[in-house]
Amino acid sequence: MDKIRVAVVGYGNIGKCAVEAVAAATDMELVGVVRSVSTESIYGIKVVTDIKELGNVDAALLCTPTRLVPEYAAKYLNMGINTVDSFDIHGQIFGLRGTLDEIAKKNNAAAIISAGWDPGSDSVVRALLEACAPKGITYTNFGPGMSMGHTVAVKAKKGVKNALSLTIPTGTGIHRRMVYVETLPNADFNEIKKSILEDDYFINDETHIVQVDNADKYIDKGHGVNMQRSGASGTTHNQFFEFNMRVNNPALTSQVMVACARASMKQKPGAYTMIEIPVIDLLEGGREEIIRGLV
Amino acid sequence: MDKIRVAVVGYGNIGKCAVEAVAAATDMELVGVVRSVSTESIYGIKVVTDIKELGNVDAALLCTPTRLVPEYAAKYLNMGINTVDSFDIHGQIFGLRGTLDEIAKKNNAAAIISAGWDPGSDSVVRALLEACAPKGITYTNFGPGMSMGHTVAVKAKKGVKNALSLTIPTGTGIHRRMVYVETLPNADFNEIKKSILEDDYFINDETHIVQVDNADKYIDKGHGVNMQRSGASGTTHNQFFEFNMRVNNPALTSQVMVACARASMKQKPGAYTMIEIPVIDLLEGGREEIIRGLV
Repeated sequence: MDKIRVAVVGYGNIGKCAVEAVAAATDMELVGVVRSVSTESIYGIKVVTDIKELGNVDAALLCTPTRLVPEYAAKYLNMGINTVDSFDIHGQIFGLRGTLDEIAKKNNAAAIISAGWDPGSDSVVRALLEACAPKGITYTNFGPGMSMGHTVAVKAKKGVKNALSLTIPTGTGIHRRMVYVETLPNADFNEIKKSILEDDYFINDETHIVQVDNADKYIDKGHGVNMQRSGASGTTHNQFFEFNMRVNNPALTSQVMVACARASMKQKPGAYTMIEIPVIDLLEGGREEIIRGLV
Repeated sequence: MDKIRVAVVGYGNIGKCAVEAVAAATDMELVGVVRSVSTESIYGIKVVTDIKELGNVDAALLCTPTRLVPEYAAKYLNMGINTVDSFDIHGQIFGLRGTLDEIAKKNNAAAIISAGWDPGSDSVVRALLEACAPKGITYTNFGPGMSMGHTVAVKAKKGVKNALSLTIPTGTGIHRRMVYVETLPNADFNEIKKSILEDDYFINDETHIVQVDNADKYIDKGHGVNMQRSGASGTTHNQFFEFNMRVNNPALTSQVMVACARASMKQKPGAYTMIEIPVIDLLEGGREEIIRGLV
């Protein structure tokens, strides 16, 4: 069988791990990395500024900032290239799916969106647990771990040199934010603090802001999830389910994206979230071997 | 939208819970129960010995002993009725899928097989975790809880009046069997013990056999799972995942079957295991509402 020709778009935290995850997949060939600025090759991998320079590409992993995903996905789908992203702006996922679905169908391509770990693999578990116990509440507790989105929001504040924002679970889906801020010389820490507390990213959560000399010293990409559901199956209550994980964040995000690139080759044209694709399509290997091994 | 017309076939532990789970699903109508022996109606539900007496049936939940599943599934699929079962003889699942796939396609029907919690919902989690960390080992630890299959095997022994077999997890997918046996008068307990220890169901596990006066006194249908996977995403090792549940066994089995009956209406003709169907198809409600709520 021909290998799936995969391009990695963007070379930040997730892009770097995506390169490793594609290389580890025996059914894929890494055709290159697309960056907005031209650079030398990375460990012998071709780096280009335009995906066309990579020849035929089956699937592009969009490892760009999440806000750029809609633009890049539309662009590549219009070229007939499947796309996978980890778009994580919750309120905009269904809308993005609609926009990309139309473009994908017109160009005989498939997009799998919001395919990281949350949204992504966690969404699959959440949906499965709803099926197992249709009545009840699911709590998704994140962390302790560094939130990329919150960190970026703090770094964008005037007077901030470097920062990190940790997510601390306090149970029942409620989280504390621990923000470590390294200020620029002459910056007013109290001004920065006020601005963070008023930011949409933080306004609804208990937030603690600590000034530090060197934010970089605290950075660890470990993250975690504890998901709990207690519910009723039929008329039987007290059915209890729990999903835990403790992971390197960008490594898991990019691995899920790689699995979805594989799955994208098996879907009909259109845009999908992960709960809309069969989990078997995420896996390497033949159907019989997978069913015999995992069912 | 028309309600899905569902029949429950068999009225043992799982059949009784299935009746409740179908009644709790607002998109389904319970058309009746099929039993091999004619009985009065059950709480106002129609009970028949031949499914034809129930008129049009969209999906049949096969709550029969697992060994009878192949025969019943073939029979109903030949009538164009979708089937769902919780067939759990692991080595025979792929073969059953092949047999039923052919019959289902010929009759424009869909079968979802091995759709309980293991095989079933656990299989979905196992497959998802393989996608999240392709290298590594998954351990599925069962219990403590009553194994229906092992209990039936013990009850079938000569001289046994009643029995139960508990599955006790000892970690890394290894299990202890605790068997409680109530003998018939004049039965030889040592003979029974020897026969159990030599049985295929027990021969590979640490097995303890205890004689009791009244096995019924010990029966509890609670069961549990602890699944663990440590693996590598790309080249990043030590990614750790864990899935736990503590449930009423027949209530969860039947609830998963009900969800799969719903999903069967959305699949193309053929036979499927749960890892081959999108999890969204298991859920009640519209696609937009589900995606907005769970992804």
